[in-house]
Amino acid sequence: MSTYRVAQVTSPDGRFEIVEREVPQPGPGHVRIAVDACGICHSDAVFVGAKVPGVRFPLVPGHEVAGRIDALGEGAQDRGWQIGDRVAVGWFGGSCGHCTACRQGDFIVCENLKVPGWAYDGGFAEAVIAPSDALARIPDALAAADAAPMACAGVTTYNGLRRSSARPGDLVAVLGIGGLGHLAVQYAVAMGFETVAIARGADKADFAEQLGAHHYVDSTAGTGVADALRSLGGAKVVLATAANSAAIAATVDGLAHRGELVVIGAAPEPLDISPMQLLMSGRVVRGHPSGTSQDVEDTMAFSALHGIRPIVEAVPLSQADEAYQKMLSGAARFRMVLTV
Amino acid sequence: MSTYRVAQVTSPDGRFEIVEREVPQPGPGHVRIAVDACGICHSDAVFVGAKVPGVRFPLVPGHEVAGRIDALGEGAQDRGWQIGDRVAVGWFGGSCGHCTACRQGDFIVCENLKVPGWAYDGGFAEAVIAPSDALARIPDALAAADAAPMACAGVTTYNGLRRSSARPGDLVAVLGIGGLGHLAVQYAVAMGFETVAIARGADKADFAEQLGAHHYVDSTAGTGVADALRSLGGAKVVLATAANSAAIAATVDGLAHRGELVVIGAAPEPLDISPMQLLMSGRVVRGHPSGTSQDVEDTMAFSALHGIRPIVEAVPLSQADEAYQKMLSGAARFRMVLTV
Amino acid sequence: MSTYRVAQVTSPDGRFEIVEREVPQPGPGHVRIAVDACGICHSDAVFVGAKVPGVRFPLVPGHEVAGRIDALGEGAQDRGWQIGDRVAVGWFGGSCGHCTACRQGDFIVCENLKVPGWAYDGGFAEAVIAPSDALARIPDALAAADAAPMACAGVTTYNGLRRSSARPGDLVAVLGIGGLGHLAVQYAVAMGFETVAIARGADKADFAEQLGAHHYVDSTAGTGVADALRSLGGAKVVLATAANSAAIAATVDGLAHRGELVVIGAAPEPLDISPMQLLMSGRVVRGHPSGTSQDVEDTMAFSALHGIRPIVEAVPLSQADEAYQKMLSGAARFRMVLTV
Amino acid sequence: MSTYRVAQVTSPDGRFEIVEREVPQPGPGHVRIAVDACGICHSDAVFVGAKVPGVRFPLVPGHEVAGRIDALGEGAQDRGWQIGDRVAVGWFGGSCGHCTACRQGDFIVCENLKVPGWAYDGGFAEAVIAPSDALARIPDALAAADAAPMACAGVTTYNGLRRSSARPGDLVAVLGIGGLGHLAVQYAVAMGFETVAIARGADKADFAEQLGAHHYVDSTAGTGVADALRSLGGAKVVLATAANSAAIAATVDGLAHRGELVVIGAAPEPLDISPMQLLMSGRVVRGHPSGTSQDVEDTMAFSALHGIRPIVEAVPLSQADEAYQKMLSGAARFRMVLTV
Repeated sequence: MSTYRVAQVTSPDGRFEIVEREVPQPGPGHVRIAVDACGICHSDAVFVGAKVPGVRFPLVPGHEVAGRIDALGEGAQDRGWQIGDRVAVGWFGGSCGHCTACRQGDFIVCENLKVPGWAYDGGFAEAVIAPSDALARIPDALAAADAAPMACAGVTTYNGLRRSSARPGDLVAVLGIGGLGHLAVQYAVAMGFETVAIARGADKADFAEQLGAHHYVDSTAGTGVADALRSLGGAKVVLATAANSAAIAATVDGLAHRGELVVIGAAPEPLDISPMQLLMSGRVVRGHPSGTSQDVEDTMAFSALHGIRPIVEAVPLSQADEAYQKMLSGAARFRMVLTV
Repeated sequence: MSTYRVAQVTSPDGRFEIVEREVPQPGPGHVRIAVDACGICHSDAVFVGAKVPGVRFPLVPGHEVAGRIDALGEGAQDRGWQIGDRVAVGWFGGSCGHCTACRQGDFIVCENLKVPGWAYDGGFAEAVIAPSDALARIPDALAAADAAPMACAGVTTYNGLRRSSARPGDLVAVLGIGGLGHLAVQYAVAMGFETVAIARGADKADFAEQLGAHHYVDSTAGTGVADALRSLGGAKVVLATAANSAAIAATVDGLAHRGELVVIGAAPEPLDISPMQLLMSGRVVRGHPSGTSQDVEDTMAFSALHGIRPIVEAVPLSQADEAYQKMLSGAARFRMVLTV
Repeated sequence: MSTYRVAQVTSPDGRFEIVEREVPQPGPGHVRIAVDACGICHSDAVFVGAKVPGVRFPLVPGHEVAGRIDALGEGAQDRGWQIGDRVAVGWFGGSCGHCTACRQGDFIVCENLKVPGWAYDGGFAEAVIAPSDALARIPDALAAADAAPMACAGVTTYNGLRRSSARPGDLVAVLGIGGLGHLAVQYAVAMGFETVAIARGADKADFAEQLGAHHYVDSTAGTGVADALRSLGGAKVVLATAANSAAIAATVDGLAHRGELVVIGAAPEPLDISPMQLLMSGRVVRGHPSGTSQDVEDTMAFSALHGIRPIVEAVPLSQADEAYQKMLSGAARFRMVLTV
Repeated sequence: MSTYRVAQVTSPDGRFEIVEREVPQPGPGHVRIAVDACGICHSDAVFVGAKVPGVRFPLVPGHEVAGRIDALGEGAQDRGWQIGDRVAVGWFGGSCGHCTACRQGDFIVCENLKVPGWAYDGGFAEAVIAPSDALARIPDALAAADAAPMACAGVTTYNGLRRSSARPGDLVAVLGIGGLGHLAVQYAVAMGFETVAIARGADKADFAEQLGAHHYVDSTAGTGVADALRSLGGAKVVLATAANSAAIAATVDGLAHRGELVVIGAAPEPLDISPMQLLMSGRVVRGHPSGTSQDVEDTMAFSALHGIRPIVEAVPLSQADEAYQKMLSGAARFRMVLTV
């Protein structure tokens, strides 16, 4: 093929249109990926809305890419990549390699982090050019539409949990059981945690149980989330997948001594948490920033090993605009995935 | 002697009076300490003001006790204590031994923590009865008036720093250089950190330098604390000794990636910190709760080894009220210590 | 009852005899346990054989005790214990409370650790007197005969794994699938590790698979254990349950970079490991010492949550000698448990 | 200049000769360094003696390089390097970037680690070509001859200590006070450890004290090293700089509970350590592999901050052979450094 289709927006908060472009060649250290699937993430709206500096239009978002390598730039082969390799690219779209964080090996907090759909054209497209350090190998057991959300929603929750202070058997609560949370609950269970799902409404209890949760807390019930957690012994970790500062802060008093609130939802409002709530019992509030391509690979391997899959609603790329609007409206229950 | 003097208050926020009491005998597992010195801590005001449950009047505060054992209750000798031993008792006045935290060995977050001057009569007195697990051995090199503040101000800062994620050579900032902070700066320097002192006013720069700080940041200067810290490379740890939520929150953007804000000042106001500030760079806000009697012992040993001393203003017990009022008024620059 | 039966030996390496004794009353801080089951552990032979100092005859071994409290010494109730409580006592039979390790809260490395069947009469009996800090609550879901081995074999492996550096998804190998190892494999799987079982002989592969192991390595095959582990990517952790220094050392080159060999089998022979094997890839050899009563409680809770049980061969107390000889001879495949 | 001098050997264990070579140009991602100083390390003998695979002759050893960048390959400027920058290159001469360790950010255990003087020509020369990820910025305060040994001897000890489990105030012992050890003692003191120097002979006590050690243990004295350490309370960490397995193993029983033996000396003989010595007190033996270029930079910054310098014997490059033979013979007390 000499052209390929992308779904692009041409101005902040514009609508998506499908356009044809010349097929690009990957530069040194880069590969071209024939996209099979790309998840739609809430944080795409940050770029589409130009809420952060550096967004350029026309914009092709998409940082949950799954596909196959179909062209290799110079040097990519030396780094172990071959045409046909099934790969995913997530929030971590490559690091600069020379800032302090990179030199310390902590790539995900790179000062010049490249996020697909922000730093370069993303996965709402039939093809993506990505640097080779952004690639995560997809295991055979995972279909592309299942692999895609693991490159952001999956790795963020898996990594947030495995890097937390919780150890197998500890009480771990997941706040929210939507796009991120429904994966987080499955991961928590497979990691051996005594797992609590927290969500709004009594009607989600059955779903939480299907995901494997040992306990369900309805945050709209009279009790209050903190009391509910305390009655279970206090949570060693709360993984806050909901981007809602009030809901996040409401869990703090439900932490056990030395308990840890791991925040992964990017809420701009301040957290209503005082030193007094943290001090006496040595509690911790930690921001957790997704994960690298190696972490994505680990996430997918873990998911394959334990039979964990996201719940996805697949929509053809040609309907990108409808799918994006549905995600924005909140009508999408779990993960919307564009397929090619 | 058959009687001893205490400085007590008889009602919330009352004035201190000196009264004579019968000398008590220590019960099983307890010792009696002939008090040589007792520091006055800001948190005494919490008890004197009956701001927490369980305060009983007449009240004898004081949780920075230094003295000599002069009577042994049953079993205390088996635990290694002898008459004449020089000992300190701090915020950690004993733990219950059977809550989950205690069974995990994490005594300082004991659900039934006994704080002297709250759970039992404290050190504004010629004698104190304390459980043997609350005792910390004072090294010969430390005078009682120097040892006393180490049982709370000292251990809280020493322990907060050594248990933080900072490693020697890292940039560590101490917010506040008063009663706690002036010790924290000395500890940070002796631990090999590149140490920043942060305080209000340009005039404190010289004092910070005398304490050994490598950098001084005037928080009232135009720049802003966060910018100042970032210009130094970003702090790996900020130890917030000031009980001022606004001042504490103002440091967060000065943390490096994976940086940690360690809060030891008990401020009740919420911290104005958002998930966005924590997320992308993996920052952490941690509450740090003082330390056990073993930690106090470690603090004093470290202080002896490195020649670190608090700056104290010694006042006789008979003037407890004047000394307490001076502390309350903010006129006491560092640590007021009652001496017997 | 006024008398109770114990299985005792009267001289080093003597045979067990059943004798009647006066029922003892628990002293302060102690409880009496009506024993329902007691596991037989290889390390009992250390005491029966008087291989360590301080063994006194007649000796009643047994440090995998499960039963019910039937008498409370003074103070035990204040620590939360009641008559009828189902409790287990393991290798950790109580700590001194005043050595440095205890004051640091690290009871299992107490310098004066009390092991039942060494420091005091153990569980080869109808009743045991134990200090209250040695008690672990048994969950309803666990039968006594299943709970007993968890107080030593279970906690040692569960704790060794959860305190290791492995995180969910990492490759973890268990060396040996006997009394300790068959529990370790189940724990490792439930913790989300990619689990390798290593044992002698191809015929154990099926059993390893039944336990949930993802891989099996026959250590008698030509390949060598280290090569086999390397071909799987290298182990993040090897948990060495076999008390065989040669077999343990043979795994080291199968560790990944930063891999950790966790040794729990008490072998006296030196490990044939050189600095060169550890240096370049930052490997670690770690001794892991069982766990406290809280750890035993965590072990049992984890086992109940995940449906993990030991494989036991139950034998009445009256046949203690036969059972012990069978264990010694190596004929017992998993765990012998004496029942009352 | 169009030619430059190197000190090379042309066959295993041959003698060094000075030859002129064409000045090379740095390739993409590389820089050329005008060498000012290069330390001679015991491990150079491994390469000169062809004791490891991949050594090619003629060989120019040297992995403690300090100099100035005098030519930039393509892309090096983008990574922040400029002509005239003062830089050091140590044992870490660059990593592959695509093995698992590299993708995890743990470059020093890279499976394809490039060591100067092995993977490419090293610093026994007037110029070195090195990849830009191998460069560590030298602070102004450090002279080249002082900076050079910090790129291997310095970083290995500094990093081994800061990454150990010791916290300020803990008892830390340094085994050996030669090329590595005399730096380690200074680092340990500046990190706030209670520092023990262990060496052969009573006559080294004064020197240990000059380095700042709080205690000195003569390993040839009757007592035995382990007993001596135990009488000081037991070491939290022993940093073994001596490449002598017997001397290393002799320290294990001097470790406190949870104590850690950090091995940095590459001895091929097995360590005479049994599981029994590690088990009950939870001891650890850890191999520590030097450090990355960022670690070297941290080491030099720490040294500059705390006034720590190696003791060097400077010799002109033209006398490389004499200097190398002196190092081999053991006659060099601390660090031999070739200067240009």
